[in-house]
Amino acid sequence: MEFTTTYVSQNYPIIVSHHAIQKLTQYTANYQHVFVFVDEHVSTHWSSKIQEVIAYHVDETFVLPAGEQIKTFQHFQSYLEQLLSFQPSRNTCLIAIGGGAVGDFVGFLAATLLRGVDFIQVPTTILAHDSSIGGKVGINARQGKNLIGAFHRPTAVLYDLDFLTSLPPSEVLSGYGEVYKHALLNDNSFVNALETTYKDTASLLKLTNMEQYLMKGIQTKLNIVVNDEKEQGQRQWLNLGHTFGHAVEYETKIPHGHAVMIGILYQMIVSNQMLGVSHTVRRYYDYFQTLGYPLHLIDTLSFEPLLQLMKQDKKNNQSGIRMVLLKNIGDPTVKTVPIEILQQAFNHLKALRKESTTNDNID
Amino acid sequence: MEFTTTYVSQNYPIIVSHHAIQKLTQYTANYQHVFVFVDEHVSTHWSSKIQEVIAYHVDETFVLPAGEQIKTFQHFQSYLEQLLSFQPSRNTCLIAIGGGAVGDFVGFLAATLLRGVDFIQVPTTILAHDSSIGGKVGINARQGKNLIGAFHRPTAVLYDLDFLTSLPPSEVLSGYGEVYKHALLNDNSFVNALETTYKDTASLLKLTNMEQYLMKGIQTKLNIVVNDEKEQGQRQWLNLGHTFGHAVEYETKIPHGHAVMIGILYQMIVSNQMLGVSHTVRRYYDYFQTLGYPLHLIDTLSFEPLLQLMKQDKKNNQSGIRMVLLKNIGDPTVKTVPIEILQQAFNHLKALRKESTTNDNID
Repeated sequence: MEFTTTYVSQNYPIIVSHHAIQKLTQYTANYQHVFVFVDEHVSTHWSSKIQEVIAYHVDETFVLPAGEQIKTFQHFQSYLEQLLSFQPSRNTCLIAIGGGAVGDFVGFLAATLLRGVDFIQVPTTILAHDSSIGGKVGINARQGKNLIGAFHRPTAVLYDLDFLTSLPPSEVLSGYGEVYKHALLNDNSFVNALETTYKDTASLLKLTNMEQYLMKGIQTKLNIVVNDEKEQGQRQWLNLGHTFGHAVEYETKIPHGHAVMIGILYQMIVSNQMLGVSHTVRRYYDYFQTLGYPLHLIDTLSFEPLLQLMKQDKKNNQSGIRMVLLKNIGDPTVKTVPIEILQQAFNHLKALRKESTTNDNID
Repeated sequence: MEFTTTYVSQNYPIIVSHHAIQKLTQYTANYQHVFVFVDEHVSTHWSSKIQEVIAYHVDETFVLPAGEQIKTFQHFQSYLEQLLSFQPSRNTCLIAIGGGAVGDFVGFLAATLLRGVDFIQVPTTILAHDSSIGGKVGINARQGKNLIGAFHRPTAVLYDLDFLTSLPPSEVLSGYGEVYKHALLNDNSFVNALETTYKDTASLLKLTNMEQYLMKGIQTKLNIVVNDEKEQGQRQWLNLGHTFGHAVEYETKIPHGHAVMIGILYQMIVSNQMLGVSHTVRRYYDYFQTLGYPLHLIDTLSFEPLLQLMKQDKKNNQSGIRMVLLKNIGDPTVKTVPIEILQQAFNHLKALRKESTTNDNID
C-alpha cells in the first residue's frame, strides 16, 4: 500500500508492504552522497536483504547499537564527525534502517548536518509505524527522553513488513502499545477489532492482519500531524499514555510501548477523576495483563520521581502537568492536571494492581 | 528604524536604533521561561544597560565566553543540560546578546531545545548585522565552521547601535567586511558611498553614517533570504568571499570579516579568470590595505590546506568547488571552479601581495 502525506508542501510517500525496501534505490539515485545506518540486530538478521539494496551507490554503512542507547550527545557528535569526514555536500541522503531509536537518531543527524540534509526512514519494528511518521527526531538528555531534537520530515518512509517477522515477543508487545493507542484515539470499532483479533499473546505474536491495523494507525497519526506539525494543539493527543508512560520508561527502562500501556491505564484513571467519565479501567488492566505487559512493575513505582520526570514534559505550561485525557474512545482532550489528582490517580493505580493480584493470587 | 521581514508567514520585526534593547521586555512578557545569554565582553562593558532590561522576568542569565570558542559540541551539550535543569516548557524564549558567535550558538540551542523554542537576537557588533538576520544558526565541527546547525528564525532582532561604540578596532574592521560585501552584491553607488565615507581607518572607526549602511546591508540580505531561506539558489550569493574566506579564517584564526575581505580579493581574481571580466583587483587590494586588513597573512598561506577546507563547503556539488563570482558589481553568479583555476588564482593572489610589498617597501 502506498500513499502520500497531505501537507501544504514538501509531502513524502509512505510505502507499507512486503519488500518495500526494494524501492530504496529509486529514492536515492540522484544524491551525491548516501549513508546508511542500520540497527545491529537488523543488520545481523537481515544482512542479505539489506546488502541487496544498498550494495551500490552507498558511501558508507554504519551499524548502530540497538535501542535508546544510541540517542546520546556523544553518539550525536561522533556520527556527525564521521559523516563530515566524507566531506559531504547538502545533496546527501541518510537512510535509517531500524526501530524508533535509529529513526530518531539518524533523523536528528540529518536535521543538523550542514543545517539539514534529506533522510529516508526504513522502519523495521511495529513501534516505528508511529515514530517514523511525522518528522519528530531527536536524542535524549540526562533529564529525560527526546528533550533535544527537531521537526524534520523524512523524504520517504519505506515500511517493509518482512522485518516484523523477526521481532522478539517483547518488541511486538511494545509496538502493539502504539497501535492500541492509535485505536483509542480513533474509535470503538478500531479498539474492538484489535481486541477481537488479538485475544491473547499467541494471537498477537502471529501478527494476523497486522498490516491493515498498522495502516489504520499511520492514517490516524497522519490526520493529526498534517494539521498540527509543531504540536501546538491536537498533535498533543498522540501523547495519550505518554506523559506518565515516558516517566515510567525512563525510571524502569522497560520498552517504550510497555510503558505507554501502563501510561494509558494511568491516564484513564485521571480521565475518570478530571472529566467525570467512567472508563472501566479494570477491563483495560485485565486485557493488558492477558497480553503479557509487565504490570507487576506498578508495585515498584514511587510517585515522587515520576512526578519530577513528568514535570520535564515539553507540553507543560505554568499551571501544572498537561496530560491527554479521553472523554470517550476517539474523543481526546488535553487538560492541566493538579498534583493532588496525579497523586490520587497514582494511588488508584497501585490499588488496582493490588486488587488484581489478590483476586488472581498469581502474577 | 523598524521593519518586518516579508516571508509568507512567521515574519519577525527588525529594530535598528539606539536603545533598541529597551523594547526587549515587550517581546518577552508572555513567555513562561526566559533565559538570557550575554557575551562576556558585552556583559562587562554594558552591565548596567543590560541589567536595566533583564532585571525582572528572567529565569537565568548565562555569561558566555566571547567568540567562536563557544560554538563547540561540548558547550552545546552543557548549555542544553543547564537549560533543561530548569524544566522549561516549549513556552520559552532564549535571548542572545552578543556578536555573531553568540547568536549562532544560542540560536542552535533554541532550534533543538525541546525540538525548538523561540529566540531573540540582540546583536552587539557590526558583523552581526549579517549573522543575526536570516535564521542560520549552528556550531563548528573539527572539520570546519558552521557545519552543524539549522535554519531557525528569530522571533525578533533588536539591533541596539549603542553597543557598537565600544567595539575594538579589529571588530569594527571585521564587521565592515560584511557591510562591504553587501555593497558589492548591491550596486556601484553603495560601494562608492562606503569608500567615500570610509577613506581610511580613522574615518571607519568613527562609524559616521554607519546606521544607514547597516540598514542597507540588512535590506540587501533580506531581499535575498526571504526568497531562498534554505540556500537552494540565490542565498548562495551571500557567500561572496566566504568560500576562500572561511578557509582562511579556519586556518589563520583571524576575525571573520578580515578573512572575508581576503576571500573577496581571491574571488575577484577567480571571477576574472572564469568569467572573462576585468575587475581591477589591485584597487580593492589597496583599499583594504589602507583600512588595515591583515593582508600580510597572504604570505603565510599554502594552497593545499585551504583547498581541503574549501572542499568541506556546504554548497559544493560533485564537480568541484562552488563559488560566488561577480560579473559586475551587483551582479553575482555561482560557478563550479576547477582545481587548476583555484590554484592559478591562489598564485595570482600571492603575486599581487608580493608586487604590493615590492612597490611600497613597507607593510
